[in-house]
Amino acid sequence: MLGTPQEEYTLVDHVALRQFVTEVFTRLKVPPEDAAAAADILVRSDLRGIDSHGVARLDSYYVTRLMAGTTEPCVELRVERETPTSLLLDARNGLGMVVGYHAMQRCIDKARESGLAMVTVANSNHYGIAGYYAMMALPHDMIGISLTNASRFVVPTFGKESMFGTNPIAFAAPTKEELPFVLDMATSGVAVGKLEIALRQGVPIPLGWAQDKDGHPTTDPRAGLIGRALMPLGGTREHGSHKGYGLAVMVDILCGVLSGNGYGPAIQPSKTAHFFAAMRVDAFRDVDDFKTMMDAMIRDLRASGKAEGHDRIYVAGEIEWEYEKERKEKGIPLHPLVIASLKTVSEKTGVPLKIG
Amino acid sequence: MLGTPQEEYTLVDHVALRQFVTEVFTRLKVPPEDAAAAADILVRSDLRGIDSHGVARLDSYYVTRLMAGTTEPCVELRVERETPTSLLLDARNGLGMVVGYHAMQRCIDKARESGLAMVTVANSNHYGIAGYYAMMALPHDMIGISLTNASRFVVPTFGKESMFGTNPIAFAAPTKEELPFVLDMATSGVAVGKLEIALRQGVPIPLGWAQDKDGHPTTDPRAGLIGRALMPLGGTREHGSHKGYGLAVMVDILCGVLSGNGYGPAIQPSKTAHFFAAMRVDAFRDVDDFKTMMDAMIRDLRASGKAEGHDRIYVAGEIEWEYEKERKEKGIPLHPLVIASLKTVSEKTGVPLKIG
Repeated sequence: MLGTPQEEYTLVDHVALRQFVTEVFTRLKVPPEDAAAAADILVRSDLRGIDSHGVARLDSYYVTRLMAGTTEPCVELRVERETPTSLLLDARNGLGMVVGYHAMQRCIDKARESGLAMVTVANSNHYGIAGYYAMMALPHDMIGISLTNASRFVVPTFGKESMFGTNPIAFAAPTKEELPFVLDMATSGVAVGKLEIALRQGVPIPLGWAQDKDGHPTTDPRAGLIGRALMPLGGTREHGSHKGYGLAVMVDILCGVLSGNGYGPAIQPSKTAHFFAAMRVDAFRDVDDFKTMMDAMIRDLRASGKAEGHDRIYVAGEIEWEYEKERKEKGIPLHPLVIASLKTVSEKTGVPLKIG
Repeated sequence: MLGTPQEEYTLVDHVALRQFVTEVFTRLKVPPEDAAAAADILVRSDLRGIDSHGVARLDSYYVTRLMAGTTEPCVELRVERETPTSLLLDARNGLGMVVGYHAMQRCIDKARESGLAMVTVANSNHYGIAGYYAMMALPHDMIGISLTNASRFVVPTFGKESMFGTNPIAFAAPTKEELPFVLDMATSGVAVGKLEIALRQGVPIPLGWAQDKDGHPTTDPRAGLIGRALMPLGGTREHGSHKGYGLAVMVDILCGVLSGNGYGPAIQPSKTAHFFAAMRVDAFRDVDDFKTMMDAMIRDLRASGKAEGHDRIYVAGEIEWEYEKERKEKGIPLHPLVIASLKTVSEKTGVPLKIG
């Protein structure tokens, strides 16, 4: 298995897992097609090895809020402004994955007509992995982009107060024979999950990942989590943290400010904003020529000289494609705590859990 | 002065400097309007404190090539493909700044009609600071983006062979009373110039900036320069270098692959590619509302809690705006070596140097 300790994990079939999640959402009054889309996004995250953003969050991020009535199961996205190339949507506190799915679909539809399109969305919720939406462009021979802001957890360079989230950038470009290029990256140096793992393992974190609540660099994962103070990509000013910080603000301008949602400290569930873009490759160049050159670039990168101690150079998305292939065949390894949370969901909703 | 030692530098008036550079380009058969645009881009770089990309390179990057006939002084950009929102241009080995200026101007013109536009450009040359072109969108109440690939100087994560350039990302968004947000960043951790400065000063560089030619992390600036092996933003895999690497490849996809120019190792003078985008703010939201929220965000960031030992939090572009204000008033401090190179240019071209 790719980097996952097997013993304590249960291997779960992705089709059964997707079916369970779909039924859970349907039971919570999410329309069937939307429920299927939301389930596909969560399970795709697990398939691609991004365990933090998949069904592990089904209970805490989605089911709890749907049952409490703090996320709306069924809303029509409201068009606030529209041109042939652009769209401003009010998500009206809908389920984040459903919002993202429909918003990117509309973006692709517009790009089909106009060559390019961009959509910004206010008043949404956590939408899972940004990469999913960027990848929706690929079957249409388009380049896809997806950005989102997120609850505050990252400090500006020289700051001690978290002023923005891990604000990811996802970018997907189609290929011919090689696997598509899929960049899906937080603009912080590491994800929150990295600190949680270090805390569980009782090991220190490297300097440059996080600060304590007073703004001192820390190797204590607990201090970093209490401070909610991850460093932007780059880590320190000396290593370019002002760049990660700048990228995070750029994401918030396109999501939070351009949509009118609000930015940084204002971001929370029901007040989260996204941005999507789609570009037809053939608006610039013949698709086949583009894809052939993409393949060549990917092969050149992989074949280039390795640093001592390394025998492989990866291209963005490559590891995730390998996870996806393996986990589709062998099943998705779920941690006992995740299985337990799915059992809780099953009990709460009455949807039988026929996995594991 | 902002961080520049004064003694040995000559303060030069920006108007006189721009005039000199304009005349030099005109003398080398660049049409007068193009010469003025190219001069403005170089001098703007010096005004904004980006001394590495300004007139310091006039001789080595531009004049030498124009005089040798290896860069074309006067070419019409050739339209290879065009839609109302997109444009593929062949720069036909034109002067990079002139190419960038006209390409971004056309991008803005298209965005005025269509809401959004993107332009990709093949067969160009080094175009100076990426930020200039992104900023061209600001007076039109548009968001501007400018990307370029560059000669190889950066290695992939786990690699030892430079496979792409410092591939910068520039993004500019308009504001109301605050200074515009202008992110202009290499996707490497540091610029080549940082190693050159360390070498001159005889000091080691921090680990994470560069590798030697065998792929070992190095603190020796000379080894990093010989290896042409800067690290992507993030520095090490542990600190997220795969993200800087991914961003650099994203830039090359939009520049080198989408334009058909070629990518990474193929990039050199006359074979450099750019990408531009412009977005009307009012395609999404009323301009005044957007700008008011931009101001609020910038003020919130500046007012947020400072880490111990720091009394100021900067927003992208802020330092450059301060440089620009100060240097417009007091002059641009030019190093004796830069003055000497301008004298060489003066002798070569016969344009009198009436500065310093």
